[in-house]
Amino acid sequence: MLKKIKGAKDFLPDEMIVRQFVIDKIKEIFERFGFDPLETPALESWNVLSAKGAGGSEILKETYNFKDRAGRRIGLRYDLTVPLARVVSSIPNLTLPFKRYQISRVWRYGDVSKGRLREFWQADIDVVGSNSMCSDAEIIACAGTIFKTLGFKDFFVRLNNRKVLNAMVEIVGIEKKPINIFRIIDKLDKIGIDGVKTEMKRIGLKKNEINELLSMMKLRGSPIILKKIKDIIKTPLGKEGILELEKIIYYLKDMGFTNIKIDLSLARGLDYYTGPIFEFWVDENIGSVAGGGRYDEMIERFSDRGLPATGISIGIERVLEVMKKRGMVKMYKTKAKVFVANVKEEFFREAVKLAKRLRSEGINTLVDLMGRNLRKQMEYVNAKQIPFTIFVGEKEVREKKFTLRNMVSGSESLLEIKDIIKRLKETKLFNNFV
Amino acid sequence: MLKKIKGAKDFLPDEMIVRQFVIDKIKEIFERFGFDPLETPALESWNVLSAKGAGGSEILKETYNFKDRAGRRIGLRYDLTVPLARVVSSIPNLTLPFKRYQISRVWRYGDVSKGRLREFWQADIDVVGSNSMCSDAEIIACAGTIFKTLGFKDFFVRLNNRKVLNAMVEIVGIEKKPINIFRIIDKLDKIGIDGVKTEMKRIGLKKNEINELLSMMKLRGSPIILKKIKDIIKTPLGKEGILELEKIIYYLKDMGFTNIKIDLSLARGLDYYTGPIFEFWVDENIGSVAGGGRYDEMIERFSDRGLPATGISIGIERVLEVMKKRGMVKMYKTKAKVFVANVKEEFFREAVKLAKRLRSEGINTLVDLMGRNLRKQMEYVNAKQIPFTIFVGEKEVREKKFTLRNMVSGSESLLEIKDIIKRLKETKLFNNFV
Repeated sequence: MLKKIKGAKDFLPDEMIVRQFVIDKIKEIFERFGFDPLETPALESWNVLSAKGAGGSEILKETYNFKDRAGRRIGLRYDLTVPLARVVSSIPNLTLPFKRYQISRVWRYGDVSKGRLREFWQADIDVVGSNSMCSDAEIIACAGTIFKTLGFKDFFVRLNNRKVLNAMVEIVGIEKKPINIFRIIDKLDKIGIDGVKTEMKRIGLKKNEINELLSMMKLRGSPIILKKIKDIIKTPLGKEGILELEKIIYYLKDMGFTNIKIDLSLARGLDYYTGPIFEFWVDENIGSVAGGGRYDEMIERFSDRGLPATGISIGIERVLEVMKKRGMVKMYKTKAKVFVANVKEEFFREAVKLAKRLRSEGINTLVDLMGRNLRKQMEYVNAKQIPFTIFVGEKEVREKKFTLRNMVSGSESLLEIKDIIKRLKETKLFNNFV
Repeated sequence: MLKKIKGAKDFLPDEMIVRQFVIDKIKEIFERFGFDPLETPALESWNVLSAKGAGGSEILKETYNFKDRAGRRIGLRYDLTVPLARVVSSIPNLTLPFKRYQISRVWRYGDVSKGRLREFWQADIDVVGSNSMCSDAEIIACAGTIFKTLGFKDFFVRLNNRKVLNAMVEIVGIEKKPINIFRIIDKLDKIGIDGVKTEMKRIGLKKNEINELLSMMKLRGSPIILKKIKDIIKTPLGKEGILELEKIIYYLKDMGFTNIKIDLSLARGLDYYTGPIFEFWVDENIGSVAGGGRYDEMIERFSDRGLPATGISIGIERVLEVMKKRGMVKMYKTKAKVFVANVKEEFFREAVKLAKRLRSEGINTLVDLMGRNLRKQMEYVNAKQIPFTIFVGEKEVREKKFTLRNMVSGSESLLEIKDIIKRLKETKLFNNFV
């Protein structure tokens, strides 16, 4: 038997129906916050993916790449941010700010034995062209509205700033490249404090440096902790970073979002962040369901024009996994609302005609395509959990009235076609929320 | 400047908004006909893509492929049919018929100098498990409903049958593999009669064989021509093929679809077709906008279970290209409905709060993220063609009434927030149909 590749998933109808429902909700809220859709190719030239200021060396190790027939190295995008930077840097007269969303797939050649997917979907929003912290706040408020709308009750945002992290490295007096340290801090949730210590030692940090860093990383809590942080991180860069966080918190209050945890142990793994960074968590144990931050230097490395930018990426797979695990969504096997059964084969044409009528009214309708008898047709209706059946037999065709059976309640009504249409249109179905 | 790869497109918001509008319409009609969504990975193992019974050698020449880190050859799918066959062959207890749709991208390394795209989107429906010609008719009726809904008036389906084509080759007495001949016939629209003759000669067909084939290929017209075809194609296989076409026409009549042209010069290029084949045209000059057919032997080659199947693929790029060229769609630069302008910077927070309120009512809302003065804010509103502006100034904040300006008519009203919400909700916008 032929198989799919490792680390990639087929989404069968029951799964796809709930995915589309959730993605449509996300899309709706993105648009409510004034983000407009963008789509870019899956394939990007290696020059783009490996550009200075893009994702960085770690992510490139996981990036599918190959030479095309003309000998050009190309690869499958590892995120939706780098393609966005390429797009905006290529449009000289772009109206700013450019607020776009993109819900699409990305690829990373990760370790499948650790449950990592090699193809997965992200839902991204970004504001390009604005250096106002109100943009970062909008990004966070928009993601927060999404998690609320999807039914999460215990979500919160972890907030930090690369400037504060850089200040920490500076204060400790470490001379290593900060990004190498951030990448280690980013693994904290996976490898724990001891793992972080070991890795920091491995790249050459001294014991006292590690301890100083770790003690600062422990600073976390509600925004009130910023007072304490101010007393410890006093360099100009650190102050700037803290002020940015304060502004974000201030705007978020106006936007009605207050589930904020300042967390100096939040680092994010990608190279490109330059300012505020954030992650959404729905539970202390599950890990992040969305992450992002400000990257003011990527776009100027892609062209000669600098544009500040900030954004977030929601992990569709992770969100759906949690929603299913927690029983937050119902599944449907089909979106067909009604099956038009022919009582005998001779009435099949009449069933087809009736289906045509229902479909023209916008009702999702099935007929038997297998030449089955009524019993087998009903087995199919039950297997697919189709909510209604209409029976087409001799009497029905003669009297132009048809029996409509509600497959859940079992109740039946003999109705004229126009009343069947009315009844079916009135019945709202397929809400995947529990 | 960093560039996108050749033959791939970025879809900026104005383009994406109309794409999503059209794709949503297509999706809606797919579901109306009882098709449910499926999604599969972009990457497939080479074993799948190159399996016997799949797309065939010609398409493999255009298929992006490479070895992953573990040395396995993988490739980007060239269609959505082969992945479907893999999926259904892997589910032993699949409820039949399996009617699925998939709207997604495919990749082919085509000649960009001829305007071919290397990444493009297809919208596919397939019925798996049914050998009834009613399934083929449903596929055609569904696609027909889509073209009608999208506003096409002059579309028609070209209909033929690989069995009839095989019978033609048989009658002429040609001993070459029929698929090689079909691939040449498939190029008729591109290379013309003389081109077809030359290529047939090149693969070794004799002059009289070519002439006999070409004379049969001329048989085309409304379904009435089947009578004439019956007189010419009398082999058992040919008769079977003609009977299938008659059944499809018969069911299509019940489904209200009659724009049918029987056309013995229609061949389709892919290897896997075994029965009826069809193409939608919206104009004699533009070429096909959708194509498909029956492929009863692919799935049994993927596993040990045989399942008949039929389907169609709508070319999203081609459809949109024609709709735009013909002025069938309007474009929008943003889906934002209203911009909340702050008359002075000190009212920005109030604007943010008002935006929060509007967004919570489901209204797509923007505020200024650039710290601009009112004039610059209005330049932005005009550049983005945002339909409404609300002005937040001293008087407005004090009186809790805000000026709502309709940016198209220029009319202004001073309204309470609840009336602004009502007015904005009542105004239906963003219908991309002209």
